[in-house]
Amino acid sequence: MNSEFELIDLFNQIGSKYYKENGVIIPPGDDCAVFKSKKKIVTSVDASVEGIHFLKNTNPQDIAYRSIAVAISDIAAMGCKPLAFSLSVTSPSQNRAWFEDFALGTNEIANQFEIPLIGGDLTRGPLNIGVIVYGSPFNKNILRRDGAKPGDFICISTEVGKGAKGLKDLKNKISDSPFIKYYLRPTPKIELGKKISELANACIDTSDGLLVDMQKMLKASNCGGKIYLDKIPVISNIEDLNLGDDYDLCFTIPKDKFTDDFIKIGEVSKSKEIKLISNKGYDVKIAGYEHF
Amino acid sequence: MNSEFELIDLFNQIGSKYYKENGVIIPPGDDCAVFKSKKKIVTSVDASVEGIHFLKNTNPQDIAYRSIAVAISDIAAMGCKPLAFSLSVTSPSQNRAWFEDFALGTNEIANQFEIPLIGGDLTRGPLNIGVIVYGSPFNKNILRRDGAKPGDFICISTEVGKGAKGLKDLKNKISDSPFIKYYLRPTPKIELGKKISELANACIDTSDGLLVDMQKMLKASNCGGKIYLDKIPVISNIEDLNLGDDYDLCFTIPKDKFTDDFIKIGEVSKSKEIKLISNKGYDVKIAGYEHF
Repeated sequence: MNSEFELIDLFNQIGSKYYKENGVIIPPGDDCAVFKSKKKIVTSVDASVEGIHFLKNTNPQDIAYRSIAVAISDIAAMGCKPLAFSLSVTSPSQNRAWFEDFALGTNEIANQFEIPLIGGDLTRGPLNIGVIVYGSPFNKNILRRDGAKPGDFICISTEVGKGAKGLKDLKNKISDSPFIKYYLRPTPKIELGKKISELANACIDTSDGLLVDMQKMLKASNCGGKIYLDKIPVISNIEDLNLGDDYDLCFTIPKDKFTDDFIKIGEVSKSKEIKLISNKGYDVKIAGYEHF
Repeated sequence: MNSEFELIDLFNQIGSKYYKENGVIIPPGDDCAVFKSKKKIVTSVDASVEGIHFLKNTNPQDIAYRSIAVAISDIAAMGCKPLAFSLSVTSPSQNRAWFEDFALGTNEIANQFEIPLIGGDLTRGPLNIGVIVYGSPFNKNILRRDGAKPGDFICISTEVGKGAKGLKDLKNKISDSPFIKYYLRPTPKIELGKKISELANACIDTSDGLLVDMQKMLKASNCGGKIYLDKIPVISNIEDLNLGDDYDLCFTIPKDKFTDDFIKIGEVSKSKEIKLISNKGYDVKIAGYEHF
């Protein structure tokens, strides 16, 4: 049997080599963590729940990595740099091996993104991983979802549907599927966010489905758009546009700042309508992932 | 049936009148919230789980209030001022009435402590309320638990056991018990934290039990202490010292800064031993609430 305190010890030093450069003053162990930043602070929280955000019996290392990655993705969507994160782990198990594996995944992504774990809470109950991320702008600009302007090109950076295909292959036990890693280990697009932070007018991450997330961005911006379905690269089929788990960025960029590094999938329009256009006869409605 | 987005709308404006004075730049609705502070940022996360931190069938208004209050208590323990909070609500229900009640409790404590809700996540699963709080020092000083010095007086501010008595009376359906409010609606000691922030050497909140929390503070400070059990005011009996749910502050203060506003319960010693002293024959061991 392991006490809460012995288990917490597994997490105490994760990312500690980044305390100083990321402004951490009081690391985990007190009632609060303390950090400082001369810049604005961006922050977000994401809960990952067993059976909803990851399958039952997922390796705890993957659970940790994935739960933290999807939270960092929100920092990427703001065009910002992650500074630190906190964890709230509710777990039915007090099995030390489970927590050791979970700490491994936590350590892995902390080192990949060079961010320290600055606080947390460990409690008993049905498995629920809460991840809180803190970040700040790379330069000055913070991307918002409400800044799209008519005439902007609507862009993404990669094929749509890799995460969903990974989930499907995982369920079907296709263990050598090259897509499973996109589901279990999504890569937050921090570098892309940095690159577009001085170029784009609006941005959102595509966690719930490309079309529905794009719709949120355009609605928040009081705009609509023409979407060229034929130009959107998909992994499986056109329904990929309504599947979640991709964690790419969808952003709008003034025409003169567009480069071939990005995939143009449409244009922002003044009219609030979102027109899905296809010459190939694709017929798809906007219907992304519902959390309820 | 209510969509995630309709339910989120219930929370959109909570504490919005405090955005400006508390430095909120981007409120809920984007991928991250954004705020700024010239001071250091203190932050903490607390999960409240049904059956562990609150009883089944607790009124959602009380669940919200209590979950947020216990998180704010961590800001009080640092001697800091709360600035804002975020919520991660995992719920099996999508019942609008439940969420309306939950939003009422959220609104109530947001207004009481003058803090805006700046972000959140809503997902499906067994009931789990994650609360993230952000604060900053009132003046310059941030209280830590590792600053106790030999010779300091160990203090609290009120009787021990009110929260535990409230829980007991609630379980026993003693509906007119004056203690239930201490359990369902604990008051974070922000004003006390402010008052002692320039006086105390160390501080912790007593969420897990006075003795065990005091022990954490003394251990973190590499000290021990003499505790005068006879001097500690308790509600039920000496076992109250090992019961959680009080959310008072336990702090150490140099002898010359002690005033009668505080209740002295012991003295910090150089020896790492914690001596529990009683002339009345009280026999109690340190054994607080274990989260597992």
